[in-house]
Amino acid sequence: MQAILDEIVATIGVSNDRGKVADYIPQLACIDPNQLAISVALADGRVFSAGDHQQLFSIQSISKVFTLTIALGKLGDGVWARVGREPSGDPFNSIVQLEHENGKPRNPFINAGAIAIADAIMVGHQPKETLAEILQFVRFIADDESICIDHNVAESELKTGDRNASLAHFMASFGRMNNPVDYVLGTYFHHCSIAMTCQQLAKAGLFLAGDGENPVTGTRVVSARRARRINSLMMMCGHYDGSGEFAYRVGLPGKSGVGGGILAVAPGHASIAVWSPGLDEVGNSKLGTEALEKLVQQTGWSVFA
Amino acid sequence: MQAILDEIVATIGVSNDRGKVADYIPQLACIDPNQLAISVALADGRVFSAGDHQQLFSIQSISKVFTLTIALGKLGDGVWARVGREPSGDPFNSIVQLEHENGKPRNPFINAGAIAIADAIMVGHQPKETLAEILQFVRFIADDESICIDHNVAESELKTGDRNASLAHFMASFGRMNNPVDYVLGTYFHHCSIAMTCQQLAKAGLFLAGDGENPVTGTRVVSARRARRINSLMMMCGHYDGSGEFAYRVGLPGKSGVGGGILAVAPGHASIAVWSPGLDEVGNSKLGTEALEKLVQQTGWSVFA
Amino acid sequence: MQAILDEIVATIGVSNDRGKVADYIPQLACIDPNQLAISVALADGRVFSAGDHQQLFSIQSISKVFTLTIALGKLGDGVWARVGREPSGDPFNSIVQLEHENGKPRNPFINAGAIAIADAIMVGHQPKETLAEILQFVRFIADDESICIDHNVAESELKTGDRNASLAHFMASFGRMNNPVDYVLGTYFHHCSIAMTCQQLAKAGLFLAGDGENPVTGTRVVSARRARRINSLMMMCGHYDGSGEFAYRVGLPGKSGVGGGILAVAPGHASIAVWSPGLDEVGNSKLGTEALEKLVQQTGWSVFA
Amino acid sequence: MQAILDEIVATIGVSNDRGKVADYIPQLACIDPNQLAISVALADGRVFSAGDHQQLFSIQSISKVFTLTIALGKLGDGVWARVGREPSGDPFNSIVQLEHENGKPRNPFINAGAIAIADAIMVGHQPKETLAEILQFVRFIADDESICIDHNVAESELKTGDRNASLAHFMASFGRMNNPVDYVLGTYFHHCSIAMTCQQLAKAGLFLAGDGENPVTGTRVVSARRARRINSLMMMCGHYDGSGEFAYRVGLPGKSGVGGGILAVAPGHASIAVWSPGLDEVGNSKLGTEALEKLVQQTGWSVFA
Repeated sequence: MQAILDEIVATIGVSNDRGKVADYIPQLACIDPNQLAISVALADGRVFSAGDHQQLFSIQSISKVFTLTIALGKLGDGVWARVGREPSGDPFNSIVQLEHENGKPRNPFINAGAIAIADAIMVGHQPKETLAEILQFVRFIADDESICIDHNVAESELKTGDRNASLAHFMASFGRMNNPVDYVLGTYFHHCSIAMTCQQLAKAGLFLAGDGENPVTGTRVVSARRARRINSLMMMCGHYDGSGEFAYRVGLPGKSGVGGGILAVAPGHASIAVWSPGLDEVGNSKLGTEALEKLVQQTGWSVFA
Repeated sequence: MQAILDEIVATIGVSNDRGKVADYIPQLACIDPNQLAISVALADGRVFSAGDHQQLFSIQSISKVFTLTIALGKLGDGVWARVGREPSGDPFNSIVQLEHENGKPRNPFINAGAIAIADAIMVGHQPKETLAEILQFVRFIADDESICIDHNVAESELKTGDRNASLAHFMASFGRMNNPVDYVLGTYFHHCSIAMTCQQLAKAGLFLAGDGENPVTGTRVVSARRARRINSLMMMCGHYDGSGEFAYRVGLPGKSGVGGGILAVAPGHASIAVWSPGLDEVGNSKLGTEALEKLVQQTGWSVFA
Repeated sequence: MQAILDEIVATIGVSNDRGKVADYIPQLACIDPNQLAISVALADGRVFSAGDHQQLFSIQSISKVFTLTIALGKLGDGVWARVGREPSGDPFNSIVQLEHENGKPRNPFINAGAIAIADAIMVGHQPKETLAEILQFVRFIADDESICIDHNVAESELKTGDRNASLAHFMASFGRMNNPVDYVLGTYFHHCSIAMTCQQLAKAGLFLAGDGENPVTGTRVVSARRARRINSLMMMCGHYDGSGEFAYRVGLPGKSGVGGGILAVAPGHASIAVWSPGLDEVGNSKLGTEALEKLVQQTGWSVFA
Repeated sequence: MQAILDEIVATIGVSNDRGKVADYIPQLACIDPNQLAISVALADGRVFSAGDHQQLFSIQSISKVFTLTIALGKLGDGVWARVGREPSGDPFNSIVQLEHENGKPRNPFINAGAIAIADAIMVGHQPKETLAEILQFVRFIADDESICIDHNVAESELKTGDRNASLAHFMASFGRMNNPVDYVLGTYFHHCSIAMTCQQLAKAGLFLAGDGENPVTGTRVVSARRARRINSLMMMCGHYDGSGEFAYRVGLPGKSGVGGGILAVAPGHASIAVWSPGLDEVGNSKLGTEALEKLVQQTGWSVFA
């Protein structure tokens, strides 16, 4: 495995076509695009890494997998009264679908859906408490107490967060927000600003590869049935309007973030985290996707074979 | 396996809520809704069935999996100049996306996409020749020379095919049809009218469960890589705007038809065909989906675990 | 008046920026763009003209004013069960609105609406009879028996009419066509291919300037109330998604055609026809609009003052 | 004229089908629907009224005519870089068009457009100063210093203004807001909350009937050309997706408000204000529209005849 990862990083890491670093969040715009990391946490507990895997990056939308998991724990199937579970066929920040469907987001991974999920898990708590709870959960599943929120990124997002504010107020206008819009946005921007390394992220996703149980610690995080369902949502909706492309090329459930990270799950085999800041035209890590494509080719982990 | 199938048919077959038989094609509207069949073709060649598995039904959109396979054989990646590979987020017959994206269908499984595929595989042939080729291919992969087109259904569709004619002319207005619209529609309506039993259909899908090779006959139909990719498209787009729901509940690549059939693929394990004419509100077999959900629960074949 | 028209043609006729001749109908694409004509038929019967006013041109969508008038005569307010009377906010050939509103066109002047009107006035007649009726009506209001259909243009449109065929089949799929789609399209393409000079067209529109009565012949064509309503529809919807711009710049009810003609109505004053083949980016005659703008500035005929 | 108005109020005022009072702004929801008023300010200075014409009501979106006039005075044609001038074909609060057209509102009378206009006229001022300027302008054109803002209504709107907040943040995300969103919304909600009687409103609109000059005071408010253009915008866009209907039935430029008021302009003749709180299904005063329809029938003031 180490040899495979080393070769992937060596081959792909020299690419001249690295995509474009997201520039709408100032704090992310200044990241050096010449970075690439991959970590594979196997079901047996071993973790292999290559490239800049000790480098912290902003997990951004990957955090939506974790908040969805928390929301399912709190509300069970009540979550589906708040968001749907179909691919949207639209970009991550589209508002058109919301108007056509009475303010109910198509799925929990587009921005509107994740904001609705943030609102759902606040249930009477203050943003601070909710954030503490989210952070505690991420530390628990990654088995790492050092994971933190990068408040500079969160502040940067707040200042340029008009599109997300628009989505939140739009849902509020349909009576779909239980908490003040400002509180929900604050929570959302902060959980998107959690900073992790590839190693930490791969370990955090291991319960999804293990039918809901972390195979290393033996801790059950969610039921087997729920783990499968979260995986299915990652497959169908994890890459916005590039989800079909990711399924076609990589063949694993995955969730990307605009910071350049992707968490992918090979059920029964491994949890995989990749990171490279340059994005393709629909907003997913360009080299990260290529790295995953190569890894699956060599391991045969595609769920479609 | 036989016991599992018998129990599924016994349990689900008595349901009072069987959905609604498609009524826009007159020949399909008169089908008895009280029918249910399931066939499982295992990778080792054994086939198990229960219910009305000897009953012929109109495979309708399931045929799109076969025409896509043929098109990929003829045009290779050139197919993707004609259709995309993203879920559409829209109903099967929507035209809105076409207008927004210059007449290029989002994927090969919505109606517009399948019409574009029919046009692509005609390449200078007459409808009759093309249909002969499609039928020959289906007979080949099902290893069954008795499979035929139900011309009454095809005629019935032609007469009520205004929506599909609209889609075809719309694409033609963008210069996206190489053949006369009437010829393409004739081809499309006829390949949708292939009649098969669940047993035949399960056998026909076996190459997708076997990495492109029919494990019984040992014949390679497509490369392993291409089989995986067809599976990924079935997962992402096989159930129109109910694809997310199917992935969530069943967890297998699948393709539904408005005749009430579904072909599902459990890679490495089996090819499964179910049939029950009543449809849910997005146009997929209601009891068929339930039967698959139960089968996967008992076999553990979900690709997400 | 003659001096005003001469000066307008002299000033505008030398413009280098004449727009672009419509190229999607082959027979129209070869028209010499260096032509410009204007005719003003005053309420007192006098007609003034300048430029190429004896040149025949294809009136195209201007004919929709005449078919709407016929339909209102036949069906009365029953027309509004077939089409609405709101501006669409979309291009002339958009299909998106149709899907969102169950196949009912927003107004009688977008293509879908005019096709629905053509279907409405056929009522059991063959295309030939219907066309004879339309032609007779146009000859009657223009008081000119020499007006004809240009069959070459009609044939040319039929061959490249996929977009309109798509619209017609789309409406048919909602049960909104009483006659075979081919018949309706034949009728539509032929009435759009009526050829007229600016003089003939100005005279044909005179009843709309005279509260429904031709002030020269004293013949009542429609009631005063209906004439006002047709004028209101021309104002609101006569220039597709350039209707607001036309109202803002010209301030008269008007209907444009892709052949470069515009019929405008100055209630109580005059009926005006302009023609210049080059179109602006939304498909309305570029120099024709400028000519009308200048004419209204000098005559004070704007309805808004 | 007095007899005409008395009869209109007597006839229409007893209608049982009065529409539905807007309920999304709490302060407006409690208005007694059994009120009806009409005032006609003639070009010669005489003002006739009937019904509850001394009753103050919230002019709401009618204020957009006044802010547009101010903006045109400040920015001239620069206004059209901020908003378009085409009918939208969508409801007053739709956001779909904004996403498809990069955050530029279709016209200044839909909510998004009026918010953009409010932003445009702030130019470095505080909301308070801007509001003082707007109020001063309205008092000036109405020649009435007693006109005020109803701060209770403004507060009520602010609390339930999520949809408008969504629109404003959406435009801000395209870099289309020069001032903080909160400031702009505060300005917008307050100018919508100006309270006027029908008499005051009719007098305020008189400059639009007089080619830009108040025929009573002899004061020029805008140029003749600009007055015509404002009238054209009221005709094309003054009643949201009911603008075509209003043109068809009434035949005058007009602007409605959700408080039940309508300001209509009969160029050369009169400025007319009607008020009745019940709205039709697209949000325009039901009895108010009927009253205007009757008035125009009896006066022959339609611009289309």
